[in-house]
Amino acid sequence: MDNGGFCDDNYQSGSSDDELVDISEVTVDFSEDVPPLDRDYSAGRCKAEWRPNNSPKLMDLLDDTVPGIGTYEDFNTIDWVREKSKDRDRHREIANKSKQSTVALLFSISDAFSGWLLMLLIGLMSGALAGGIDIAAHWMTDLKEGVCLNGFWFNHEHCCWASNETTFQERDKCPQWKSWAELMVGVSEGPGLYVVNYFMYVCWALLFAFLAVILVRAFAPYACGSGIPEIKTILSGFIIRGYLGKWTLIIKTITLVLAVSSGLSLGKEGPLVHVACCCANILCHFFTKYRRNEAKKREVLSAASAVGVSVAFGAPIGGVLFSLEEVSYYFPLKTLWRSFFAALVAAFTLRSINPFGNSRLVLFYVEFHTPWHLLELIPFVLLGIFGGLWGAFFIRANIAWCRLRKNTSLGHYPVLEVVVVTLLTALLAFPIEYTKMSSSELISELFNDCGLLDSSKLCGYTSNSGSTSGSVNATAANGLGARLAGPGLYTAMWQLALALVLKMVFTVVTFGMKVPSGLFIPSMAVGAIAGRLLGVCMEQLAIRHHERDIFRGWCSPGADCITPGLYAMVGAAACLGGVTRMTVSLVVIMFELTGGLEYIVPLMAAAMTSKWVADALGRESIYEAHIRLNGYPFLEAKEEFRHKTLATDVMRPRRGDPPVSVLTESGMTVEEVERLIADTTYSGFPVVISQQSPRLVGFVLRRDLVISLENARRHQEGVVSMSPILFTECDPPMSPSAPPAVKLRSILDLSPFTVTVHTAMEIVVDIFRKLGLRQCLVIQNGRLLGIITKKDILKHMAQMANRDPDSILFN
Amino acid sequence: MDNGGFCDDNYQSGSSDDELVDISEVTVDFSEDVPPLDRDYSAGRCKAEWRPNNSPKLMDLLDDTVPGIGTYEDFNTIDWVREKSKDRDRHREIANKSKQSTVALLFSISDAFSGWLLMLLIGLMSGALAGGIDIAAHWMTDLKEGVCLNGFWFNHEHCCWASNETTFQERDKCPQWKSWAELMVGVSEGPGLYVVNYFMYVCWALLFAFLAVILVRAFAPYACGSGIPEIKTILSGFIIRGYLGKWTLIIKTITLVLAVSSGLSLGKEGPLVHVACCCANILCHFFTKYRRNEAKKREVLSAASAVGVSVAFGAPIGGVLFSLEEVSYYFPLKTLWRSFFAALVAAFTLRSINPFGNSRLVLFYVEFHTPWHLLELIPFVLLGIFGGLWGAFFIRANIAWCRLRKNTSLGHYPVLEVVVVTLLTALLAFPIEYTKMSSSELISELFNDCGLLDSSKLCGYTSNSGSTSGSVNATAANGLGARLAGPGLYTAMWQLALALVLKMVFTVVTFGMKVPSGLFIPSMAVGAIAGRLLGVCMEQLAIRHHERDIFRGWCSPGADCITPGLYAMVGAAACLGGVTRMTVSLVVIMFELTGGLEYIVPLMAAAMTSKWVADALGRESIYEAHIRLNGYPFLEAKEEFRHKTLATDVMRPRRGDPPVSVLTESGMTVEEVERLIADTTYSGFPVVISQQSPRLVGFVLRRDLVISLENARRHQEGVVSMSPILFTECDPPMSPSAPPAVKLRSILDLSPFTVTVHTAMEIVVDIFRKLGLRQCLVIQNGRLLGIITKKDILKHMAQMANRDPDSILFN
Repeated sequence: MDNGGFCDDNYQSGSSDDELVDISEVTVDFSEDVPPLDRDYSAGRCKAEWRPNNSPKLMDLLDDTVPGIGTYEDFNTIDWVREKSKDRDRHREIANKSKQSTVALLFSISDAFSGWLLMLLIGLMSGALAGGIDIAAHWMTDLKEGVCLNGFWFNHEHCCWASNETTFQERDKCPQWKSWAELMVGVSEGPGLYVVNYFMYVCWALLFAFLAVILVRAFAPYACGSGIPEIKTILSGFIIRGYLGKWTLIIKTITLVLAVSSGLSLGKEGPLVHVACCCANILCHFFTKYRRNEAKKREVLSAASAVGVSVAFGAPIGGVLFSLEEVSYYFPLKTLWRSFFAALVAAFTLRSINPFGNSRLVLFYVEFHTPWHLLELIPFVLLGIFGGLWGAFFIRANIAWCRLRKNTSLGHYPVLEVVVVTLLTALLAFPIEYTKMSSSELISELFNDCGLLDSSKLCGYTSNSGSTSGSVNATAANGLGARLAGPGLYTAMWQLALALVLKMVFTVVTFGMKVPSGLFIPSMAVGAIAGRLLGVCMEQLAIRHHERDIFRGWCSPGADCITPGLYAMVGAAACLGGVTRMTVSLVVIMFELTGGLEYIVPLMAAAMTSKWVADALGRESIYEAHIRLNGYPFLEAKEEFRHKTLATDVMRPRRGDPPVSVLTESGMTVEEVERLIADTTYSGFPVVISQQSPRLVGFVLRRDLVISLENARRHQEGVVSMSPILFTECDPPMSPSAPPAVKLRSILDLSPFTVTVHTAMEIVVDIFRKLGLRQCLVIQNGRLLGIITKKDILKHMAQMANRDPDSILFN
Repeated sequence: MDNGGFCDDNYQSGSSDDELVDISEVTVDFSEDVPPLDRDYSAGRCKAEWRPNNSPKLMDLLDDTVPGIGTYEDFNTIDWVREKSKDRDRHREIANKSKQSTVALLFSISDAFSGWLLMLLIGLMSGALAGGIDIAAHWMTDLKEGVCLNGFWFNHEHCCWASNETTFQERDKCPQWKSWAELMVGVSEGPGLYVVNYFMYVCWALLFAFLAVILVRAFAPYACGSGIPEIKTILSGFIIRGYLGKWTLIIKTITLVLAVSSGLSLGKEGPLVHVACCCANILCHFFTKYRRNEAKKREVLSAASAVGVSVAFGAPIGGVLFSLEEVSYYFPLKTLWRSFFAALVAAFTLRSINPFGNSRLVLFYVEFHTPWHLLELIPFVLLGIFGGLWGAFFIRANIAWCRLRKNTSLGHYPVLEVVVVTLLTALLAFPIEYTKMSSSELISELFNDCGLLDSSKLCGYTSNSGSTSGSVNATAANGLGARLAGPGLYTAMWQLALALVLKMVFTVVTFGMKVPSGLFIPSMAVGAIAGRLLGVCMEQLAIRHHERDIFRGWCSPGADCITPGLYAMVGAAACLGGVTRMTVSLVVIMFELTGGLEYIVPLMAAAMTSKWVADALGRESIYEAHIRLNGYPFLEAKEEFRHKTLATDVMRPRRGDPPVSVLTESGMTVEEVERLIADTTYSGFPVVISQQSPRLVGFVLRRDLVISLENARRHQEGVVSMSPILFTECDPPMSPSAPPAVKLRSILDLSPFTVTVHTAMEIVVDIFRKLGLRQCLVIQNGRLLGIITKKDILKHMAQMANRDPDSILFN
């Protein structure tokens, strides 16, 4: 099953998406032109062939008659227009039938509500899976440290649940929970404990990571990475068979737990989007409406990516906006509403499973007591700049690393790579408190405002640094307020700074390895650390200089006027924004994540700065960079094409090339067509009136043509190599002795999209994006001159971008 | 300035949006066909004419050379493709220049940030205006009851602010605030007081309404109504000059205050969207980038409608989603982000003005203490059904009433109509407490959960019905809990039921009158009343039957297990959803409005049911119904076109009609073209190679053609009626004595959109929607056969919808 690995390997499609290009002679002789215009426009014996009442025949044929016609090969792009037409035909048929019988009416009602049912099922399944992943990851993360005597299946927190200690730190050390050193060596103090625990931590981490990479390699190579770049590509209309299959789902779910538990610098949020999309794809199989229509399926997948973010962060609205802003390609309003429904169902399923044990939907609930001051926007903007720089640096470094992996022999040892990175991560992470804990715990702690009873080192202020239990009366004791930094806080600061560097380095090398890996949480962790550091600095500055003019406005002595937790939150948003270039969805996710509706303005200031800075240093988000790295045929909908080229500059054939390969409406034989198919690799051929008068009749897909010819050879009597192939409506007069004609008008697309040679490429790009075309024919004054495929456009855009990189200003 | 009134008058456009149709002879003789294909494709002396490097010339010409070319007439549809191209050309030009000098670079930077600056200004201006409207409306509403002795400019609440009474009811009667009866007659009790106050209330209401309608009639007929249907139409690309002008802004702001204060059953939310759009349009004038580009202007207007909702409800996210879901036509992601920024700025401006005096962004802040139970979904769904029924009824009744107004002599007396409706409303509203107070106060009170000290009649439970000051000890005194209904509550129920009927009737007749009127608040009020009624019923049912199985699960005796305020909130959402058919934006607005993130599921259940029920009874929202009533050329983006017709069935000319009117590339004289222009009303003409060979060269707009010909006659020497008109690139050989040719290739659109006769109409409709076309040419085998305009499509859709109304199922 190993197809050589998928993450960041260059995608090599079996069949080419390239189309056509060649007419033999273009010297046109108009004296031999076709019959006059009125031929098939005025009433005639063949007119009915393409009149409305006859059209369903075409669709039936596409759907049923010859199996395979109307489907796609792997690594091909779907034709959105055709898929949507198919769906409308289906609707019409059901609507017509529903008037005839009660059964058909019931069927039509069930069909109409099947979309909602599907959304419900996706929400339930994804929510349940996410809950399971959360619980399992939580347990296995704790397993690295020790085990519960009451039952090995309890995690640390549940194990100590019943313990009646008051502070978190003491409850942490409940007697039922034994670290490995205590269990194995029997020591409960001293360096021996530390060494054994260290050793066990590293061993477990290696075991988990090794299992993860082996499972991915053996059963589902598609399960690695975050999956979002591929899902973006799939949603834009590309076909990657098996990418959303059941094996990918099973293996991704298991290995995600393993990878997260191994302590690698990765998150589960991106992969959860992939998991939700797998669920959606699998559930689609039970609904004919969605199974058989690639466009409809993509509507469902768009909703599923909203579900993924919804369960990852407990943020249903943010999830829908994420899907809309970041992932989806075709997102009609109907999908918006259904996505929201599915996202809500998933979030509530997750909440009833209650994996965090706090019966909240909110992952990092914060409650700050001091409002922010307008002047604090300056540090927030600084955090935004940091986030933008981090985003740009991360994308460049990660892409460089992935390219290195791809181009050197490093790529041949994915298992070794994972094991080595895990070993290094575990070795370096254990000694530092903030890297040893899981990233989400870290973020949660960094976001937290220090209460008086808080025993965290981050709250090691002078007032309560002496006594860990804290004392309420100590608060206002010294003149500088409760928040003057104590030694505990200084230690925490150094450790945090170290953790920041480690997180940054490890995140760069981890994302793209052959294990499931998301980068939401690592990015947020980097930002949260940086934010907290800045926040504490600001806080100490304000306390020590509270008499200065600048602070006097809002910082009365003894009061907490700066909340370092808010800085951590803003920093997290800034860094996530720099990496993913999300905007509205980022702000909404952050406020749903933390419950802080009051802090939209700081979040937005940081997100905006971060995006501007990052965009100035490189226009692509990490997902787009990976899409380009892997060579997926993805036509970015956000960026405008700004170059002044015309269709004629992009179309194939280029000047000097042989003319475009075409079929003629009549006059070609089976043999000639088969030879043309064998000689070329184009995935479709324009059909013209005649070689002499290359005026467009329609377009036929290679796949449909091959299948139809095989079918004719097999099932139609008397078809030989010399049989003529007819795309016309009327049979031309033929001698009775001639072999029977193969009539293929039914597979002919009579309304191919056309542009003129003068059409500006910016308009062509717009048409491709908005209508989801695969190809477009280029016409001048009614004559076919060439063709433009999606791939031609992508190539052209890449060329133009290299030639003249866009500046940030003109966006 | 009275143009006969705008609200719900049939729109009569001066110029027709209809285009063309006529070729004289279609008998084609191909022996006379044009030169071979390679003519202008291979290198030739004229090739450069349409090569990229030469194209800016075309744009320069369109922008500058001949004034008026590239602009639109009133009541016309813009060409999105052309506008977007223009903008891209502008960008390119600035980008190129910016490399040459520092000044140009600075200009390019300022140009790039001008969008953000504009958003900031729109946010500030709209926020300030909304704050002013809120304060003024509040004061004038209170002015109907009395006046403050401390200063007539204080409203009731501010007047009694300093008063040190504890309960709201007693503070209400502070000595500084005098009712009109007290001031004028001197009585402070008895029927005299009531009668005088009644009389003054009606007088003030009549005065306000009269002023409003007179101002609208005299200065800005466009200021009436909610404005949302027109803004939807404008955003879809229609031009209505003056609709967003300064007069409309001034008059709408003033009359909105008057109309709201008059006590009519209308809200200020819809009109605020109009006000924000006026601000945006006026501010656009200061930015060349937006002033001169209709497409860019519409991006700004989309953001402005988000701003409008943001200030109306204090809901920035909901505003953006409203704009996206309900109003906008072209909403690129860039606009999403900017809208969000503008919406936030506006919301914060409003908050700093603090018109509600509670320094909250949230209009109806609620805090419920009891969670909802799963079984309560049944009444919530019932409320959804009620909301859907109300929505469908309201739309039908309102449209019928508007049609009556339009078709009978009623429409000739708009001032009288407003005065009579105001009189009736005031007369009937005064005696009932819940109609006398303003709708937003009513909603606020209905949403509110009863505290123990609450003196509202709605909280007239037995435990505190006796003593208005309430007693904490009475709570658990009786076995049935604190919430058994007392006489106060029964009175309130009857009054609410009466208020419900009145609100329903008056909302139907009010919306569409010649005063600014929104229907968000009236719809919500209807729903909130119904919800509260059902909520109280449920509550009493639960209290009286708490031993039944169904309630035992969640209703222990003595505890409050049902929150009638939540029912009011759900009912309000359901009714608003039924009328406007909003979905996600509705839920988000509701939760931003009330701060209740916990209640998404009830809100969504009700909104979903309401939309389904309402859709089953009529597919249009109130805005779409008004768009259709007024005959605006609006192509709905939400509804799919589901009929199996082809382009040939819709294109003009129809079979049997004379062929399409075309120009030829060469060979026509100025006189012939001018005669064609005079004889037809089409707004554009296809240009073909020759009448004999109607193969498409391009498309020219009537307006551009007229302006160019006038310009040539005036400024080009030697142009006479017999001068030939050339659309070709090369000058044909001419005798020296012939008059000089008028070369018009620069105004020719060389890349008109084409479809084939076989193209399904569903695809054509899709293309029109997604690309924003005005017209599309119909081709068969390279020959021009006809044209399809946006109006043709709208007509066709209306015909098909009448023939075979869609069922709800197939959506």
